[in-house]
Amino acid sequence: MDVLGHQPKKSRGVLATLDFNDEDLNSALCEATAVTKEYFDSVNEWRVFPLIQGKRLRHAIRERLPLEPTPPGKVIQKFRQTILENARHNLHPRFFGYVSSSGNPVGAIADLLTSTLNQNVTAWRSAPSAVEIELLAIDWIKEILGYPREAIGMFTSGGSLATLQALAIAREVKAGKNVSRNGMQILGRSRLILYMSEQGHMSIPKAAALLGLGKSSVRTVRADQAFRMELSDLERQIAQDRSRGHRPFCVVASAGTVNTGAIDDLEGISRIGRREGLWFHVDGAYGGFAALVPSICDRFRGIEKADSVSLDPHKWLYQPLDAGCILVRNRRQAYRTFSGSGEYAKVIAGIPGEDFAFFEHGIELSRRFRALKIWMAFKCYGARLLAACIEKNLRMAHVLETLVKANEYLEILAPVELSIVCFRYVPISVQKAYFCARPAQKQELDHRLNRLNEAIMTQLQREGRVYLSNAVLKGRFALRGCILSYRTEERDLRILIDEAVRIGRMWERKV
Amino acid sequence: MDVLGHQPKKSRGVLATLDFNDEDLNSALCEATAVTKEYFDSVNEWRVFPLIQGKRLRHAIRERLPLEPTPPGKVIQKFRQTILENARHNLHPRFFGYVSSSGNPVGAIADLLTSTLNQNVTAWRSAPSAVEIELLAIDWIKEILGYPREAIGMFTSGGSLATLQALAIAREVKAGKNVSRNGMQILGRSRLILYMSEQGHMSIPKAAALLGLGKSSVRTVRADQAFRMELSDLERQIAQDRSRGHRPFCVVASAGTVNTGAIDDLEGISRIGRREGLWFHVDGAYGGFAALVPSICDRFRGIEKADSVSLDPHKWLYQPLDAGCILVRNRRQAYRTFSGSGEYAKVIAGIPGEDFAFFEHGIELSRRFRALKIWMAFKCYGARLLAACIEKNLRMAHVLETLVKANEYLEILAPVELSIVCFRYVPISVQKAYFCARPAQKQELDHRLNRLNEAIMTQLQREGRVYLSNAVLKGRFALRGCILSYRTEERDLRILIDEAVRIGRMWERKV
Repeated sequence: MDVLGHQPKKSRGVLATLDFNDEDLNSALCEATAVTKEYFDSVNEWRVFPLIQGKRLRHAIRERLPLEPTPPGKVIQKFRQTILENARHNLHPRFFGYVSSSGNPVGAIADLLTSTLNQNVTAWRSAPSAVEIELLAIDWIKEILGYPREAIGMFTSGGSLATLQALAIAREVKAGKNVSRNGMQILGRSRLILYMSEQGHMSIPKAAALLGLGKSSVRTVRADQAFRMELSDLERQIAQDRSRGHRPFCVVASAGTVNTGAIDDLEGISRIGRREGLWFHVDGAYGGFAALVPSICDRFRGIEKADSVSLDPHKWLYQPLDAGCILVRNRRQAYRTFSGSGEYAKVIAGIPGEDFAFFEHGIELSRRFRALKIWMAFKCYGARLLAACIEKNLRMAHVLETLVKANEYLEILAPVELSIVCFRYVPISVQKAYFCARPAQKQELDHRLNRLNEAIMTQLQREGRVYLSNAVLKGRFALRGCILSYRTEERDLRILIDEAVRIGRMWERKV
Repeated sequence: MDVLGHQPKKSRGVLATLDFNDEDLNSALCEATAVTKEYFDSVNEWRVFPLIQGKRLRHAIRERLPLEPTPPGKVIQKFRQTILENARHNLHPRFFGYVSSSGNPVGAIADLLTSTLNQNVTAWRSAPSAVEIELLAIDWIKEILGYPREAIGMFTSGGSLATLQALAIAREVKAGKNVSRNGMQILGRSRLILYMSEQGHMSIPKAAALLGLGKSSVRTVRADQAFRMELSDLERQIAQDRSRGHRPFCVVASAGTVNTGAIDDLEGISRIGRREGLWFHVDGAYGGFAALVPSICDRFRGIEKADSVSLDPHKWLYQPLDAGCILVRNRRQAYRTFSGSGEYAKVIAGIPGEDFAFFEHGIELSRRFRALKIWMAFKCYGARLLAACIEKNLRMAHVLETLVKANEYLEILAPVELSIVCFRYVPISVQKAYFCARPAQKQELDHRLNRLNEAIMTQLQREGRVYLSNAVLKGRFALRGCILSYRTEERDLRILIDEAVRIGRMWERKV
């Protein structure tokens, strides 16, 4: 250890401080805000993904632990030139990859204030105003979903944490025998079984593994042609598990799958869940905030019956990372699962409302003041404008669908329910062959198309004008565009189509 | 649902955007930076904890979901007047509560840039420069601890997540039978047992509950007079558990307990752990970064032998929330525990280094670019200055200890090892009675002193000139001061002593 070696006397003085003098603080703030302005002004003109070599980037970034200070201006310059230039730009109007928030200026400003004020939102006594703001922002979200007012909620680092937290409560409530205290082994041989659609998110088996349920306790229910959970298969599997002596305890529905944006039949799943005594969790990480849009909010009917909901403001509420969110219908169940803290953190004040502690209702103890940006977004933009942006994304998805369907080289691979469009490039020659092929031949053609479309995606990403990711749907590799930037306009979709077709035509003979 | 009711036509237009015009963006950034400057300039003069009534605060904050926009300037003003004024100020030189980072100007600026750039640090292909910066910052931290270069690490939302992640790997590696897949029940009746000191952190049993081990699988090992784990009791309990057919699998040592700052005998515990085949985790959430200080880094010897380490840059590296950190000696074990993701997130590029994914080595999928502030802090301040600040905190703790010992009303309750000082107020009359009391009488006097010191703490917090929290040490309520603000100077400690004694003298007749 002792990385510093001999410590020179001067820096050991009583004057050690992390504060700058006025001039330096001013100039650091000025330069940082200049970068912020430049970024929001100009990112549309940049490549979506950098022209980059890992080795060269590493060479530009790596250095030994800095012992001596560098002027902040220089460090911000380095950030500008090396980090920002070699980033993928999720705000870009032609970034269509994964499910990534664009971010927005209010979110950036809010996070400056969040880290200036540096609240630790553990409990009311630790951060009174931050706790009140978080509870308020959660109330607004409950209102958007029509979720019960008496529910509890909080912001998390993302959907994975929200899911883990929800399933922990589900396990505690449904397992009985106080598994938090006694461990899963107290349950003996009969397994707790969880159901999700085959289109469900990977965070669900990951949570099941962490919770000691095991990934093998997760049943994947068949999805129909629209990629929604097949209720008959859900019922069949529940019955089968019961007949084998297992204990079905939870069903997770998707309110917007990451592959295609399919929304499960929430009402139907809720009904089966209630009848079978299952915990009903809705994963609305991607789609949840589309409930803000009057023209589509009916599609989310049933979400208000969920025992728990996860949804990500850092997806379709355009918030910068991180801001996940969990809602739990019955706050006592959350408390029962997570309370029982040490004397060290015990809340002493006895005034109602002032003895509230987030850490007694969730996993995290220290918590960033994530609610500030959400509060500021609703205040600065208003819910109507946020809804209008979501609505624009929905409309753009339908424009893209129309463009795909009208293009002779492209085939749509899934219904467009939210803002995800899945399609693939199919050479004219293959289209003809496919038409009169037998199943085995079709499969072979699909393999070829998969390789071709994977090559198209990689090339698109490399060229940097648009960015798509992929989904594999019933064995078919789809180019998958997810529209979550409030900046995406019709011309961006036309560029996407043109580029995909151009590259497809270029590659169709090579693959 | 349909919270918006009738949506007016204008906001449904194609022009929906979250961007401001130039002027508005400039003025929003200006106002936010003005608040930032004001805060760093003036917080020393403020109350540490606000004069506040929950009801009144709630009244000032609560409102219906805003449908229409408010100018950002007005929203920042509301932040300034309502949120900031009603916050606890962790940067304040007389904030001595819990283990809370002060924050620092570079961290605030970095978080502006983080949310402007809004990287999602899931994998190299998603955020090339951010991943490289995170891996670099982690390498620096490994160097500070003398931890193996080939280890893997990442930033988490805090110590609780880091602990959970570490114990998940420990369970996977030590349990055998692929518990991630098969669940804990595959282990049958023999329980996996984890050992921690009775002074260990509450996040450990919380993690054990989540992982399906159960809190009852956590053994609390006796602490000695210096509040360090008693190795003989550890050995005794391991032997006892083995004789009962249980399977000891993990021992968690503290490198700085939250109660008193005690550092366990890491070398000794490591030795026992190796002999017994246990996973050796070190909880350095509070203390870890004190290894930067040459005069004290020897106390951390043995940490480099840990299978995993958790430590919090958002504690003693002065970073704003959130920035926890985990290091894992054997990266393959982390991968084995967390990999196995969906097609959706599969990394396609095959170039070495460019196929790296954090989510295959940890819990979170979406991840904020937490590394930026840590990189910027090391760059802008240099490791020497950060070490000098930590050293100043250590020195201030010894000053406080000296002041306590020199004061006729105060009694020190624990050795001062890092920057925590535990003490209590004891009226002169009680001191005399205590001196010649029998055990039962002493206990009774302790009860009285506990009530008195709790009253002193509450009153101190309310008056707002200093902020202390508490610890309960061997049944005795301690006023607990933790010095983690780089701004704390000797005069602040004198004010703390004066206030505690003044309030003690005021209350000693009432309680």
